[in-house]
Amino acid sequence: MKKGKLACAITMGDPAGIGPEVTLKALTDRKVRGLADFLLIGNFFATEKTARISKIRLKINKIKSENDVSRASNKGIALLDIGNIPKLVFGQGKSAYGIIALDCIEAALRLIKSKKIDVLITAPVNKHTISQAGSVFRGHTEYLARAAKTKDFAMMLVGGPFKVVLVTRHIALKNVPRALTKKKIYRAIRLTAWGLRKYFAIPHPRIGVCALNPHSGDEGISGNEEMRIIRPAVIKAKNLAAIEGPLAADTLFYFASQGKFDAVVAMYHDQGLIPLKTLALHQGVNITLGLPFVRTSADHGTAYDIAGKNRANPGSMIEAIKLAVKIGQRIKQ
Amino acid sequence: MKKGKLACAITMGDPAGIGPEVTLKALTDRKVRGLADFLLIGNFFATEKTARISKIRLKINKIKSENDVSRASNKGIALLDIGNIPKLVFGQGKSAYGIIALDCIEAALRLIKSKKIDVLITAPVNKHTISQAGSVFRGHTEYLARAAKTKDFAMMLVGGPFKVVLVTRHIALKNVPRALTKKKIYRAIRLTAWGLRKYFAIPHPRIGVCALNPHSGDEGISGNEEMRIIRPAVIKAKNLAAIEGPLAADTLFYFASQGKFDAVVAMYHDQGLIPLKTLALHQGVNITLGLPFVRTSADHGTAYDIAGKNRANPGSMIEAIKLAVKIGQRIKQ
Repeated sequence: MKKGKLACAITMGDPAGIGPEVTLKALTDRKVRGLADFLLIGNFFATEKTARISKIRLKINKIKSENDVSRASNKGIALLDIGNIPKLVFGQGKSAYGIIALDCIEAALRLIKSKKIDVLITAPVNKHTISQAGSVFRGHTEYLARAAKTKDFAMMLVGGPFKVVLVTRHIALKNVPRALTKKKIYRAIRLTAWGLRKYFAIPHPRIGVCALNPHSGDEGISGNEEMRIIRPAVIKAKNLAAIEGPLAADTLFYFASQGKFDAVVAMYHDQGLIPLKTLALHQGVNITLGLPFVRTSADHGTAYDIAGKNRANPGSMIEAIKLAVKIGQRIKQ
Repeated sequence: MKKGKLACAITMGDPAGIGPEVTLKALTDRKVRGLADFLLIGNFFATEKTARISKIRLKINKIKSENDVSRASNKGIALLDIGNIPKLVFGQGKSAYGIIALDCIEAALRLIKSKKIDVLITAPVNKHTISQAGSVFRGHTEYLARAAKTKDFAMMLVGGPFKVVLVTRHIALKNVPRALTKKKIYRAIRLTAWGLRKYFAIPHPRIGVCALNPHSGDEGISGNEEMRIIRPAVIKAKNLAAIEGPLAADTLFYFASQGKFDAVVAMYHDQGLIPLKTLALHQGVNITLGLPFVRTSADHGTAYDIAGKNRANPGSMIEAIKLAVKIGQRIKQ
């Protein structure tokens, strides 16, 4: 590794979504190009069609079979061709596309295992089409954690001034309060401290933990999860880093934006994503903490409504690649 | 009214909190001074002590009795002395202080009724001490609405690029989903459209309505309140203004910050307050829609921890006064 460049795999996700477009656009960005060796894992036909529509010229070395992938074959930009589709309709959810998206992830996992790639960046998939194709798919993060046989993982979002780790992810708001446990909150804090040290080289992390209720429950008047669940978890985590909380979420994000905290642990999706996307809609990166390998992804979906129209903003994908490379280089040292 | 200046009453709130300090500091601000005639309603002793600690010099005309208040007496800065406290301990919750805070509000309501003041700005009170003093007090907004005999009111927060109206306010997060009704959401949208037209002179308001669940429920996978409750309310409100929603809250606030919407209707406190305070912690103004008079307030609490220490930031109070004057002048024309 010391001699060669980092080998990055990018799964291009749902071929009918904006994954191939943001991937190709990101690779033409001068801040990304040459940063590492890139192995694209996706459908060749979809990639070609996307390049044509988006008027992108990239020298890509096509690899037909996974067996032909090696550190040498990955030099520059290579593409491992997955699946076979006679035609492609952008913006349509089809189980055939779901199968390809899932096969890309599976191929990437095998290549990581055989150490032919160092870090993984994933483009968005469609949960519905993958589930239609027969595999219950709750999300990339959950799927990768399962493949790595770990329940000890967390989703961190990085964007603008924020690093946010979610205690609960894609669940209905009404299910959030009962889904919160001292154990889950403690785990999120522990993984946050671990990630800040290992991935971001912050030796003494300062972490703010959100309250669940307005004004942190107003001394119990508007909710008691702060006292019952969150505070005990924070107390248990005290030795892990400089932890403060539970803190009223509306002011906590302000103080985090001013640099008072290295990361924020949020109790639910929108609590963390609202401030992050408000300040960094096109720069958000999702990073999975707790996996045995580095994985980042663009912080957006397949965006079927604009797929195949050369309208997708590659900002998040660019940041996802840059961050994966940066972390990959750091932990390889 | 055309000749004279607007008469603004400022209730100074809990004398042991930062209310008197931010009020006096705001009145020394060159953008506020001279903007209107100001009648401070609060305890004289607390005001003097605060001025001494914060080294503030202001020429204030002391008025001993409510009967002596007139448009003429309000010229410049006047103070209607309320209550009698032998000494004052900043940062301590006492029912004696709660009684004064409530008496200030009551005096203001009478003066508004008798048309001796035009608009009302309120400094923060402490719900606990007022409740201790015998009056169940859920909040300024609710109290004023009750005094005005209306259930048709809403809380709008204004700050940075945002105007946000809350459908539910200070309730535990777990109670939010069941507290949402089509009727309440429709009312919030209606009052938002009314407020944008009447208070902000926006003839064709564009309003974004938040979803409750992550990704707006992901087509029912993570929650169905969008389909059951929010969408029907939005459809019913279609003729009131240009209404869009329910929209995923994380991206909606980004688009609102970019000017795509004049206001956002948020389903719960933190959903609206997180983006607002993140971008405008010291500029937030709370304005009550639906009252028969203009009322704004600083968007913060009594901050007992810093009271009496000359550390309070008057930013929100300055904005609250400026906005009340602006709206007061606009609707008097």
